[in-house]
Amino acid sequence: MHYPKGIKKQINKEITYANRGMSLEEDLNESNEYYIIIDRAIIYKKPIPIQINKVNYPNRHDAKIIEAYYKVPSTTDYNGIYKGKYIDFEAKETTSKTSFPLPNIHVHQIKHIESIMRHGGIGFIIVSFVNLSRIYLLKGEDLIEFINNNKRKSIPLSYFEERGYLLKYQFQPRIDYLEGIDELYRGEF
Amino acid sequence: MHYPKGIKKQINKEITYANRGMSLEEDLNESNEYYIIIDRAIIYKKPIPIQINKVNYPNRHDAKIIEAYYKVPSTTDYNGIYKGKYIDFEAKETTSKTSFPLPNIHVHQIKHIESIMRHGGIGFIIVSFVNLSRIYLLKGEDLIEFINNNKRKSIPLSYFEERGYLLKYQFQPRIDYLEGIDELYRGEF
Repeated sequence: MHYPKGIKKQINKEITYANRGMSLEEDLNESNEYYIIIDRAIIYKKPIPIQINKVNYPNRHDAKIIEAYYKVPSTTDYNGIYKGKYIDFEAKETTSKTSFPLPNIHVHQIKHIESIMRHGGIGFIIVSFVNLSRIYLLKGEDLIEFINNNKRKSIPLSYFEERGYLLKYQFQPRIDYLEGIDELYRGEF
Repeated sequence: MHYPKGIKKQINKEITYANRGMSLEEDLNESNEYYIIIDRAIIYKKPIPIQINKVNYPNRHDAKIIEAYYKVPSTTDYNGIYKGKYIDFEAKETTSKTSFPLPNIHVHQIKHIESIMRHGGIGFIIVSFVNLSRIYLLKGEDLIEFINNNKRKSIPLSYFEERGYLLKYQFQPRIDYLEGIDELYRGEF
């Protein structure tokens, strides 16, 4: 269907999270910026790793990359510090309404989260069920427990409902996942 | 001068650190890999931030970036976890034999190190005086103190000698900067 641009935006705004046009990544980046501004935490998304093959120098000060490729990230996407603790997490969206498919997370990212926890850091995942308009924070400990005790290749929604923390979507910060940390890691700070 | 390839390598190996052909970055990356293998710390260099403008898809699985530009990094290059503590640092090389020019570090990187310390993390810089074959670790606290109390735009070598920790260059890990942390942050772990 073809709506004039402004109207389409309005319609999208009024339906679901999935259609807002904002990705989980953008929402988390805005939340992180807000946390930095109010000096509550310092957490950043890492840049996407790129293999750069060819660079042109049109002049002395500019470099234009003309051949590069995406690399598989060796760690999770986000890390930083909150209340003196090392924080590390991966954020994923799924269109499924019933479960989160584990192949969405690379095996070495899961191992990375495990290592972080072993070293005393806080590791978790944030999963957005875009078609349910629900975003959960799930502790790394619960993620690993599920993987170790199940042969299933996806984590059912019910597991997130039982163990995870349902993150509110709001004005500022968009996704207050530090509230989820405060709740799920109560007593660890 | 034109030497056969192998010989030139040999000559380079025998002169100074500056001419080894290995950069500080490569040495630190190898050290970090080693720390991860022996499970002593989990510290990574962040990918270089890139602004991607145009991507080609020669087939369904490959994406070739054909126009991209380097962005100014908003944080330091390295972060991770060591002994349960959040670690954050910037590494720089200088060819000067007498001082480290402060413009080598972006102002927002210095502010970032300050924020990290305020939040209970460990922030520092590693400076390689390539023509002296000397690499120092300098605590963020000492870096900030110098900046606040001096109008000079470079930190003299003597300041590193007095306050910093001279890192040994060795086989494995190439640069054992965690030893420098143990020494300079004694009592904080």
